[in-house]
Amino acid sequence: MEISIIGASGYTGIELMRILANHKYADAVKPYSRTYAGKKACVASKSLARFDKFQNFYDFDEKTINNIDSDVCFLCTPNGEAMKIAGVLIEKGIKVIDMSADFRLPADVYESIYKIKHTAVNLMDEAVYGCPEIFREKIKNAGLIANPGCYAISAILGLKGICSEKFKNKIFSDKIVVDAHSGTSGAGKKTEEGLLHSEIYSNLKPYNVSFHRHRPEIENTLRNISDFENTSDFDGLKISFTPTLLPISRGIITDIHIFLKENSGVADFNEIAEHYNKIYKDEFFVRIVDEVQLKDVLHTNLCEISLNFDAHTNRIIIISAIDNLVKGASGQAVQNMNLMCNFDEREGLMMAGGV
Amino acid sequence: MEISIIGASGYTGIELMRILANHKYADAVKPYSRTYAGKKACVASKSLARFDKFQNFYDFDEKTINNIDSDVCFLCTPNGEAMKIAGVLIEKGIKVIDMSADFRLPADVYESIYKIKHTAVNLMDEAVYGCPEIFREKIKNAGLIANPGCYAISAILGLKGICSEKFKNKIFSDKIVVDAHSGTSGAGKKTEEGLLHSEIYSNLKPYNVSFHRHRPEIENTLRNISDFENTSDFDGLKISFTPTLLPISRGIITDIHIFLKENSGVADFNEIAEHYNKIYKDEFFVRIVDEVQLKDVLHTNLCEISLNFDAHTNRIIIISAIDNLVKGASGQAVQNMNLMCNFDEREGLMMAGGV
Amino acid sequence: MEISIIGASGYTGIELMRILANHKYADAVKPYSRTYAGKKACVASKSLARFDKFQNFYDFDEKTINNIDSDVCFLCTPNGEAMKIAGVLIEKGIKVIDMSADFRLPADVYESIYKIKHTAVNLMDEAVYGCPEIFREKIKNAGLIANPGCYAISAILGLKGICSEKFKNKIFSDKIVVDAHSGTSGAGKKTEEGLLHSEIYSNLKPYNVSFHRHRPEIENTLRNISDFENTSDFDGLKISFTPTLLPISRGIITDIHIFLKENSGVADFNEIAEHYNKIYKDEFFVRIVDEVQLKDVLHTNLCEISLNFDAHTNRIIIISAIDNLVKGASGQAVQNMNLMCNFDEREGLMMAGGV
Amino acid sequence: MEISIIGASGYTGIELMRILANHKYADAVKPYSRTYAGKKACVASKSLARFDKFQNFYDFDEKTINNIDSDVCFLCTPNGEAMKIAGVLIEKGIKVIDMSADFRLPADVYESIYKIKHTAVNLMDEAVYGCPEIFREKIKNAGLIANPGCYAISAILGLKGICSEKFKNKIFSDKIVVDAHSGTSGAGKKTEEGLLHSEIYSNLKPYNVSFHRHRPEIENTLRNISDFENTSDFDGLKISFTPTLLPISRGIITDIHIFLKENSGVADFNEIAEHYNKIYKDEFFVRIVDEVQLKDVLHTNLCEISLNFDAHTNRIIIISAIDNLVKGASGQAVQNMNLMCNFDEREGLMMAGGV
Repeated sequence: MEISIIGASGYTGIELMRILANHKYADAVKPYSRTYAGKKACVASKSLARFDKFQNFYDFDEKTINNIDSDVCFLCTPNGEAMKIAGVLIEKGIKVIDMSADFRLPADVYESIYKIKHTAVNLMDEAVYGCPEIFREKIKNAGLIANPGCYAISAILGLKGICSEKFKNKIFSDKIVVDAHSGTSGAGKKTEEGLLHSEIYSNLKPYNVSFHRHRPEIENTLRNISDFENTSDFDGLKISFTPTLLPISRGIITDIHIFLKENSGVADFNEIAEHYNKIYKDEFFVRIVDEVQLKDVLHTNLCEISLNFDAHTNRIIIISAIDNLVKGASGQAVQNMNLMCNFDEREGLMMAGGV
Repeated sequence: MEISIIGASGYTGIELMRILANHKYADAVKPYSRTYAGKKACVASKSLARFDKFQNFYDFDEKTINNIDSDVCFLCTPNGEAMKIAGVLIEKGIKVIDMSADFRLPADVYESIYKIKHTAVNLMDEAVYGCPEIFREKIKNAGLIANPGCYAISAILGLKGICSEKFKNKIFSDKIVVDAHSGTSGAGKKTEEGLLHSEIYSNLKPYNVSFHRHRPEIENTLRNISDFENTSDFDGLKISFTPTLLPISRGIITDIHIFLKENSGVADFNEIAEHYNKIYKDEFFVRIVDEVQLKDVLHTNLCEISLNFDAHTNRIIIISAIDNLVKGASGQAVQNMNLMCNFDEREGLMMAGGV
Repeated sequence: MEISIIGASGYTGIELMRILANHKYADAVKPYSRTYAGKKACVASKSLARFDKFQNFYDFDEKTINNIDSDVCFLCTPNGEAMKIAGVLIEKGIKVIDMSADFRLPADVYESIYKIKHTAVNLMDEAVYGCPEIFREKIKNAGLIANPGCYAISAILGLKGICSEKFKNKIFSDKIVVDAHSGTSGAGKKTEEGLLHSEIYSNLKPYNVSFHRHRPEIENTLRNISDFENTSDFDGLKISFTPTLLPISRGIITDIHIFLKENSGVADFNEIAEHYNKIYKDEFFVRIVDEVQLKDVLHTNLCEISLNFDAHTNRIIIISAIDNLVKGASGQAVQNMNLMCNFDEREGLMMAGGV
Repeated sequence: MEISIIGASGYTGIELMRILANHKYADAVKPYSRTYAGKKACVASKSLARFDKFQNFYDFDEKTINNIDSDVCFLCTPNGEAMKIAGVLIEKGIKVIDMSADFRLPADVYESIYKIKHTAVNLMDEAVYGCPEIFREKIKNAGLIANPGCYAISAILGLKGICSEKFKNKIFSDKIVVDAHSGTSGAGKKTEEGLLHSEIYSNLKPYNVSFHRHRPEIENTLRNISDFENTSDFDGLKISFTPTLLPISRGIITDIHIFLKENSGVADFNEIAEHYNKIYKDEFFVRIVDEVQLKDVLHTNLCEISLNFDAHTNRIIIISAIDNLVKGASGQAVQNMNLMCNFDEREGLMMAGGV
C-alpha cells in the first residue's frame, strides 16, 4: 500500500513516518513538504535512513497534490489548508486522515473559533471524528477522518464513561474541571521566543487559561456520544479547561474533577468506575489503572486512566495520560487508517514504552 | 545575631544557609545534623565556603540541643521531632521557627492526619502560622512560628482574597478545585526509587490524588482568616486538592478554579479582582500579574498570582507561582524571622530571579 | 522460543522485555527477580501488560535457576553473579548472554579491576565479546556472550577503524582522549542520594575521572581486533577515558580525539575516513554521518559516528552516539541473540527514533 | 552611580540587571533595547519590578547613544556593534565593558575569524581582556574592557597554572584537549529551529567540532600570560577545542587533558597542583576543589576547578565549572566594573548557589 503525508516536516508528520516504518502494509511512503522538498526522508529523522520504504520529500504544491494516487493520505497541514485539499483526494478514492482541526467541528463553530472561512462545508457530513473508542464503526466506513486534537482526546477518553444517560443527573455537568499539562512538541516547530529551550527549561507556563480551542472540541464530541449510548442530549455539559506547557518534549496528563450530586457519592463513584471498566475492557489502547504516570505511556499508543474518589468533596478525580504525538496525534491517525483499511487495528502500534 | 539550624542537611536547611549567607544580621550560623556532624558547612553546598559566618556542623543530640543559646533557631526536622525540642528552646528565650507540620494544625487534627501523638499541646496557643500576608502582627510578637507547607502557602495566598464576608455567598465554596504541581525538591532527600532521576525524568506523576496532608492545612488557615477580615466562619469551605510531581527541581504552580453563583459572574469577578489588588498592593512579596509562569519566581521569595475569568463556565481561575524552597519554605521562614526580630521584612530576601 | 531474563527488574532487564515484546521469535519470556517475585511483568513497565508472552516474575534462587530450560537466558545480574550461574545454564544447552562484566576481560585483569575472585575461569575461553561489528562470526557459534559495557561499546565502535595495521604508526596511540557523557539510566536503579532527581537536575558531574572500569575493557577489546584485521599487536594503545553523568535519562555521546603524526594530516584523515566508511558500509546498526546528535539514536539500536579533522592541531575528532540501554546494553544483547540463533540480525531492533 | 546597558533584552543583559539589582553602588540602571523600547525593565525579568533603580527601556539609536552620560556602560551588542559605539562613550569618560568579541583579539585575528572589518583599531591598545585572575592591575586602570567569552574563560582559568615557564617544557603543549559542554543560554535568544525546546530536550549536540571562535581567544590570552609570569612565549601552545550543547539552560563544564613528557609524571603533577593552589589561594571567585559538579557553581560567580592525574596515560585532567551567564559573562563583567571603579571586587557577587 502507498501512503502520502502532506506537511511531513513537522512533529506529527515525522512521528507518522516513524510509526509507518514498522507498519507491515505501508509499502511505500511519500512525504510532501515545502521545507524539505527534494531531500531524503531521513533529514526529518535520521533513523528513517534504515528503511527503504520512504521516498524523498516531494514539494507540496497544486501539481504534486493533483498527482497523488496513494491509497491513504495524511494531512499534517495548518488549520485552513486541509479543507482545500481533502475534496480532490477523496474524489480520487483516496482515504484521507486530516490531522488539523478543519473537520472536527460543525462549520459554524469552527469558523467562530478558528476565524477561518470554511470552504468545504459539503465534506462535513462525510467526516468522522477519529476516536475509535467512540466512533469505531463509523470510522471503518469513512473516507475522511478528522483526527482529534491532543488535549481533546485525552479529555474525551477520560470523560467518555460519565457521558451516559444513567449518570447524567448524578453529576454537576456544568462544573467539570479539566486541568491538562502538555509537553512542548504539542506546540509544533514554530520558531518563537517562547518556545526556545532556554525559556522553557525549568519553567511551567499556563496559557490560554480562559479559553483554548480544544474545549469546544471536547464538548462537541462528548455531546455526540449520546447517539451511541442512548443518552439524551447533554446540553448542560460545560468543560472548565486549562492547559499548561510542560518543560518536557512529549506527553499529556489530564486531571478531570467531577462533583457528585448525592450527599454520599461513593456508591455513585463505584457504579461509574464499574461502567468505565466495562466500556474499556475490550479496548486495546485504553487501560484503567490504579495510578497514572506519564512515562508509562510515552512512545506508545496507550491512554491510561485512573479513577479516584474524594469523599471530603464528594468528587471523582479521573486522570488520563497519553503521548501527545502518538495517541494524541500520529498513533491515533494510524489506528484510524487501520480501521478504514480493514487491517488489524493494532498494526504498527504495538510499541512498548520505557524510561 | 547567632542563628541555629537543626536538621540542616536537607534541602530546606541548605536553602536557609544560602539565604542567611547574605543576611546582614546573621553574624553566625550554626548548622546541626547527624549526617554531617563535624563537617564544614560547605559539604552541604559548596559556595558556602566563601562565607565565614558558617560554623562546622554540630551533631544533633540531646546535649547539643541543650547547649543552644542562639537568638533564633530554625527546626528543619521531620514531623514529630520539633514538638520535642521547641519547648526547651522557647524557655531559653530563643525564637523558634518550625519548618515541619508540628504546629500548623489543631492538635486533634494533626494527630488524625499525621498519625503522631502530639506531645507539646501546651505550645499550640503560642504558635503562629507563619504567613505574614495574613498574620503579620501576630508573627511580630510570636515566640514560635509554624512555617507553612509549600503547597499550602501557594494555595492560601491564591485563595486569600476570596475568603471575605462579601464574597462568601457568591461562590460555590465547596467546589473549589486546587490543582498543584511541584518540583522534586519538595519531596526532600529521601533515597527512594520513585525519586531517582531516571524515574522522574520526562515523567509527570499525580500522587495522593484523593487526599494530601496540606489540604486540611489550607482549609484550616483560610477559615482562620475570618478573625482578621470580619468574616463569619467559612465552614462550608472545602478544597479539592490534587498534587503532581514535576520533572524539575524547584517551583510550584497552583491552578485554582472557583465557580460563581450569579448567572453572569463577570461583575463579581471584577469586584473580586479589585479586592485582590487592594489586599496585595502593599505586599512586597506578592504580585498580581497578567500571566504567571514558574521561571518568574524561581530563586526568589515572590508569589505571583494571575486572576482570570471564564464566562463560559462562570468561573474564576486563579494561578499562583512560588519557589517551593523560598516562599514555600526557607525564604518564608527568614521573612518570619525578620518580623519577629523587628528587621526590615525584606532583609536577605531581595533576590532577583532568572532563566 | 522461550527466553529467561535473570535480574529483570533493573533498567537493562526492563529494556530487554520491551524489545522482546516485538520480537517475533520470542514466544514466551520468563522474568526472574527477587524484588518482583510473583508479580506481573507489567509492574516493571506498564505497557508490557498488552503482551501475552510475558509470564509473571519468578523468584531468583538456586531452585528457580536449576529449573530453567529456556532456549536463551539473559543475565542482568550484578558483577560477580553471572559467573556462578552461567556454567549450569550452558551445560543445559541454554545460550547465555551476560550483561555484566564477568566475562568481558581476562580473569586476572577482571579480578584486579573488579576486586572479585573469578570462579568460572574455565568458561572464559568460550565467552565471546558481544560486539557483532567486530566478532560477528564468533558470536554466531558462541554459547556464552559477554555483552559489552555501554561506555565501552560507544568508544570501541568509534575507534575500530583506527585499529588497523596501516594506521598504527600514523597516530599517537598513547594519547587518545575519550570524553564520554552518559544519561543516568547507565547508573542503574541504585537508591543513592547522588542519583536523586533533585541532585541530578541541571547538574553535570564528571566522575571516576582518572580511572573507570570500562577503560581496560576498551583497550583489551581494541587490541583483540588485531586477530581479525591482520594487525600486529597494538600494545602502545592507551586510552585517556573520562566519563560524565548527564541530567537526562538515556544516551551516550563519546568524543574521541586522535593526534596524527604526519605534519599535515589531512591525507591521513581522508584515508582513515574512507576506511571507516568501508568497514561500516554494510553494518545495519552503525552509520557514518556528517553530524552526530544524541536524539538521532535514542530509543534505537543505532550507533552514529561522525568523522572530523582539525588541521590546527593535526587531529581527528570522532564522535559516536548510542542509546546506552539499546546499543549500549539490551538492544546489543538481542542483536547477539539473533546471531546465535541464526535469526535475521535486525529482528526486533527496527525501531525508528524520535523527538 | 548610574549604569547603562546597551542591548539589555538578551540573556547577558538581563543577567546584568539581576546582579545590579543587589549592587549597592548601582543607584540607577538604564537599559537600552530596540525590542523593548519604552517598556518597563521587568518585561525582561519580572522580579526586577521590585527594584526602583531600573528605568524603562530606552530605544537604542544614534541619538540615545549620544545622550548617554552614565558612569559605566555595558555593551551587550552583537559582534561588530561595540566597535562603533565604544569610542564615543570612552571620549565622554564613561567606563566601557564590552560583552562582545570586538576587543578580545588582535584586529587581524578578529577580522579573519569573525569576518567583520574592525573599525576601531585605535582602541585596541586601550582594551584590557577582562579576566581579573590574570590582568587585575591592568583592569583597575582600564577604560575599556573586553569581557571574555564564556567557553574561553572556563578554559583559561583551568589552564592558567600550566602556562608558566617552569612547566612549559614538561607538557605536550600542542596536544591539549579541551572538551567543553554548555547550557543553551550561551547561544542567546536566537529563534532558530535548532534551539527550540523540543529539539534540545534529551539531546546532546556537539557543534563547531573542528573550529570554534573561542579557541583563538583561549590561545591568544594564554600566550599573553607570559608578560605576567616571566614565561617566555608559549608559541607551541595549541588547543584542541570541542564544544557541545547541553539540554540545560545554564552552566559550562570544561574537561582539559594535558599529557606530560616525563615518563612518570606524578611528581610533575604534584608540582603543578601545588602551583595551582598557590596562584588561586587568594582568588575569591576561583576554588580548587576535590570534585567538580555543575550545580555547585550555578547562579554564582565562582569557577571551581579540580586537578586529577592518570598514571596510566601520564596525563593531567583539569576540570573547571562555571555558570556561563555569571562568571562566563555578566558576573565577570560586574567584577571588572568593581575593579575599574575601585569598589570591593566582590560587591554584588556574593551569591550562594543551590539545587
